[in-house]
Amino acid sequence: MAQHRIILDCDPGVDDALALMLALAAPDAIELVGVTTVAGNVALEDTTRNAQGLLALASRPDIELRAGCARPLMRPVGYRSKVHGPEGLGGIRLEHSATLSDQHAVDFIIDTVLANPGQITLCPIGPMTNIALAMVREPRIIDAVREIVFMGGSAFGPGNSTPAAEFNVYVDPHAAHIVVSSGAKLTMFGLDVTRKLVATPERLARLAQAPGHAARTVVEMLVAYAQGDPCLHDPSVVAWLIDPSLFTGVDALVEIDCNTGPNLGRTLASVSTRHLGDRKPNCHVVTDGDVERIFELVEARLRSLA
Amino acid sequence: MAQHRIILDCDPGVDDALALMLALAAPDAIELVGVTTVAGNVALEDTTRNAQGLLALASRPDIELRAGCARPLMRPVGYRSKVHGPEGLGGIRLEHSATLSDQHAVDFIIDTVLANPGQITLCPIGPMTNIALAMVREPRIIDAVREIVFMGGSAFGPGNSTPAAEFNVYVDPHAAHIVVSSGAKLTMFGLDVTRKLVATPERLARLAQAPGHAARTVVEMLVAYAQGDPCLHDPSVVAWLIDPSLFTGVDALVEIDCNTGPNLGRTLASVSTRHLGDRKPNCHVVTDGDVERIFELVEARLRSLA
Amino acid sequence: MAQHRIILDCDPGVDDALALMLALAAPDAIELVGVTTVAGNVALEDTTRNAQGLLALASRPDIELRAGCARPLMRPVGYRSKVHGPEGLGGIRLEHSATLSDQHAVDFIIDTVLANPGQITLCPIGPMTNIALAMVREPRIIDAVREIVFMGGSAFGPGNSTPAAEFNVYVDPHAAHIVVSSGAKLTMFGLDVTRKLVATPERLARLAQAPGHAARTVVEMLVAYAQGDPCLHDPSVVAWLIDPSLFTGVDALVEIDCNTGPNLGRTLASVSTRHLGDRKPNCHVVTDGDVERIFELVEARLRSLA
Amino acid sequence: MAQHRIILDCDPGVDDALALMLALAAPDAIELVGVTTVAGNVALEDTTRNAQGLLALASRPDIELRAGCARPLMRPVGYRSKVHGPEGLGGIRLEHSATLSDQHAVDFIIDTVLANPGQITLCPIGPMTNIALAMVREPRIIDAVREIVFMGGSAFGPGNSTPAAEFNVYVDPHAAHIVVSSGAKLTMFGLDVTRKLVATPERLARLAQAPGHAARTVVEMLVAYAQGDPCLHDPSVVAWLIDPSLFTGVDALVEIDCNTGPNLGRTLASVSTRHLGDRKPNCHVVTDGDVERIFELVEARLRSLA
Repeated sequence: MAQHRIILDCDPGVDDALALMLALAAPDAIELVGVTTVAGNVALEDTTRNAQGLLALASRPDIELRAGCARPLMRPVGYRSKVHGPEGLGGIRLEHSATLSDQHAVDFIIDTVLANPGQITLCPIGPMTNIALAMVREPRIIDAVREIVFMGGSAFGPGNSTPAAEFNVYVDPHAAHIVVSSGAKLTMFGLDVTRKLVATPERLARLAQAPGHAARTVVEMLVAYAQGDPCLHDPSVVAWLIDPSLFTGVDALVEIDCNTGPNLGRTLASVSTRHLGDRKPNCHVVTDGDVERIFELVEARLRSLA
Repeated sequence: MAQHRIILDCDPGVDDALALMLALAAPDAIELVGVTTVAGNVALEDTTRNAQGLLALASRPDIELRAGCARPLMRPVGYRSKVHGPEGLGGIRLEHSATLSDQHAVDFIIDTVLANPGQITLCPIGPMTNIALAMVREPRIIDAVREIVFMGGSAFGPGNSTPAAEFNVYVDPHAAHIVVSSGAKLTMFGLDVTRKLVATPERLARLAQAPGHAARTVVEMLVAYAQGDPCLHDPSVVAWLIDPSLFTGVDALVEIDCNTGPNLGRTLASVSTRHLGDRKPNCHVVTDGDVERIFELVEARLRSLA
Repeated sequence: MAQHRIILDCDPGVDDALALMLALAAPDAIELVGVTTVAGNVALEDTTRNAQGLLALASRPDIELRAGCARPLMRPVGYRSKVHGPEGLGGIRLEHSATLSDQHAVDFIIDTVLANPGQITLCPIGPMTNIALAMVREPRIIDAVREIVFMGGSAFGPGNSTPAAEFNVYVDPHAAHIVVSSGAKLTMFGLDVTRKLVATPERLARLAQAPGHAARTVVEMLVAYAQGDPCLHDPSVVAWLIDPSLFTGVDALVEIDCNTGPNLGRTLASVSTRHLGDRKPNCHVVTDGDVERIFELVEARLRSLA
Repeated sequence: MAQHRIILDCDPGVDDALALMLALAAPDAIELVGVTTVAGNVALEDTTRNAQGLLALASRPDIELRAGCARPLMRPVGYRSKVHGPEGLGGIRLEHSATLSDQHAVDFIIDTVLANPGQITLCPIGPMTNIALAMVREPRIIDAVREIVFMGGSAFGPGNSTPAAEFNVYVDPHAAHIVVSSGAKLTMFGLDVTRKLVATPERLARLAQAPGHAARTVVEMLVAYAQGDPCLHDPSVVAWLIDPSLFTGVDALVEIDCNTGPNLGRTLASVSTRHLGDRKPNCHVVTDGDVERIFELVEARLRSLA
């Protein structure tokens, strides 16, 4: 049986696409209970259509898919990434035959978590609007969720959207605050580690040799995306679910700065007892990984898709 | 036909109780499409039980009642008012035979507004968590709602929970920001006007002469509540729906300060072109009222309940 | 002997001009130990030249005059008032034969206060940059000063430069914070009271009948200035020194919001024990005045100049 | 002739002590025009007495020494470092026969810079209160100073006093803002580089072999200090003056976050055109150094003191 029963909450996005493919390629480790979408890298209608296309590409129209929030809680609507191309998949257009339920992602998350207490791992790899809304609407999911493993933030170094803030947190810092301060068990993949997962031309060339239409299409997206941002941000979450021994990290108290000013959306992490004082860590912050082995895992899993 | 089809989003609370009674006592002006509850003056389970009790007290178990959010978006849970007594109704306990639907208040608001485009007026008289969540989850309600008339904030003067912030906005300033910046048509009853609606002993004595169990019970609550806060905050919204000629105000650009610091939860209003610059007013801020006539309206409506 | 030995720290400015004339016209109550200038309504070179001209106009070149800071601590340089005319005195040009010492205003303040412990009252009626700098450079003046009576802020209502902030505090909120949190004895004349001191055409007409060149010139400035702002802000400080029975106020804990955001430069005041908690008032906030009697005082003193 | 005519503005402090000794040991590169002290690692009376002692220890009572500000601009007084021992020199007590002028450090800085336009390099290695006050009081020094080379901040990584803020900037972030936004030519030695300058036991052992009383005493201090913080923060500034080829860095737009919240005192740096937009770099941020060669330089200079 798979160790992790997950909901992948995503905004595809090229690296989301690879993360999704990896999750589908790891049935030994991951049961993909459902996919939910959120506005982020591109608009909700795009992230949703892309998720439909990716499930079709992977021949997995059976996977539950739900669209979620089209806007962040408080920040301006429409802040988008440029590295994923106008429609979000590096210029690749997919058939999107997968069906989309009418149910809202927030309801799907709440219902699934409450129906499977202690079993569901939430994996937000876009802005955390859906997860935050679910927590405010139904606080009982905080105790019922098994774990939240997210891509977002930069605990110890600079951001990318601003000198202070990483994209996913910058788009909806208030949602990130709600999740991070919720009390749920948290593992964070921020730029601390994902900046190290660089898809060099050599690594891309190796991935490009994976057989099969699905793998080839995703690698084609990656090649386009790597022009703007060569890092495997979102796939890191799935790689860790498959093999946590590839990564190392530190327990920390993570906070989000939601104040107007130059640090809006900054993720801070207190580690030392000097900085923690009486407060306790709320998050395992992944800071490093065995980059070669991680790319080997990605390659092997992409090959297994064929 | 009633001019206003409203959803009363409340956290009873004594002045909420009077607002609800007034709404029920004004079928000529107001169709109460539903009541939704939120955590605020007291916890959600209390505000919901109190709303049930009040509908029973008014013999209106037919009114749709939905419980909403038990916590604000980002601020700490559990900041409560002290002036309403431990359970929220000035020490009065009501039978609460009214039935409560399983539907979440946020869904009820979304569904009702979308099903009746241009017709529903939302009347939040507690923290605006439910309205904000509905807007983030389903942005189409912003265009579909007719108007939002809310009690909250203090546009031109000091607060009450802090020197800067009024209670409803202080409990959930982020929700207030979402609503105030939404683009929906807004009318604000803040402390600017409600501080003037003082329930003096003489006025309370007149109200106490209204016949009937419901009126008497609500006035009994008011007498207890007036020890701590003698102002008719929430009923002002309903009084305005019944007779807007009782009030005067000004169009302004209202903002909420959500920054850490002494002005957290402060409501600001720009009125002059000097302060507005290129920006436009987003809200009608009620600043004054004909206090005697307002209390006469309250008295007349309470009498009509019998 | 005069009850008050003061340093008038000013940025003339038309209402500063009237304040200075009133101080010179009240030798029974006020000994004007010196005048110091600061950038504010207009640039430092203008406020200084204007102060020279005003002392010459009053035939008091003997009064010590020192120029101070040309810029605020942290806020952008060059935010100016528009109501005083381009050079600051309502279009009036004065001969400025009064001599100007090389000593810096900050040094004059420090030296004078330390040389006269417990005797000097500082009267800043512009941005408080000079006073703040003196306090940081020589903290001993905080205990040595008798009292600080300042025009600035708006404790309980809106601002004028922004919806939140009054001009003097907005220009240098950090200086205001340093002064207000210093521990020195403080009396504040903010917009709370000065907005009520309206120079109506009738009142201006009465003032215009005061004989003598100095009085006439200052009233001529006032008439021009009153087009843009009819309130006697700065003179209120001097009127209070002459006759405190004209005013009423309240002890409060005054704070300055220095955070980026809509309340930058806002003055807050905590009065109730609910808001004060364990903290103590740090300032007497003047909130009201007997407007007729205040204008009578102004008129009488202007007449006495002749 | 020395390439650099500097004023060392310091708060000794053990690493300040080493910085001062290095400056005195480099007459070929550095003319030490004067030493000024500020409150920081320990109180002003301690930093001043320590500076006196260090000049005596180095047999250089001829060097001009001026005491400066005893408190930061706005932050609470009395935040001190613990790693330097109670009196600031790692438990070592020095004779402090060096004379102290009555002149205030701020005046000395202003006078010296204005008297030597384009020639003086300011080297603040403590909180920048003195430099900021000098700039507000006499803005002409901004153009007249040759360069400002400071130890403070952390441009790209975490702080030490808080997860966000480095000690020198945290003590007086407002002063740092004034300096950093002044327009003067700036070189920054933050934790980015100084964290790498680790005084390992081996390196300390080598330094301990430097002959002479002065070198031995300073190394003795260093050994005590290295228990709490093994990094050569302040000496990096002097090492760079002696041999800039030991270091590398990047031009950046440096900002200081002065807002209430978790990032108070955080130094941010924008480097990419994406983050800079239309703004220009204001500072050269040193990010790396040749650690072995830097320690060799320190050792050689300490040996030269004998």
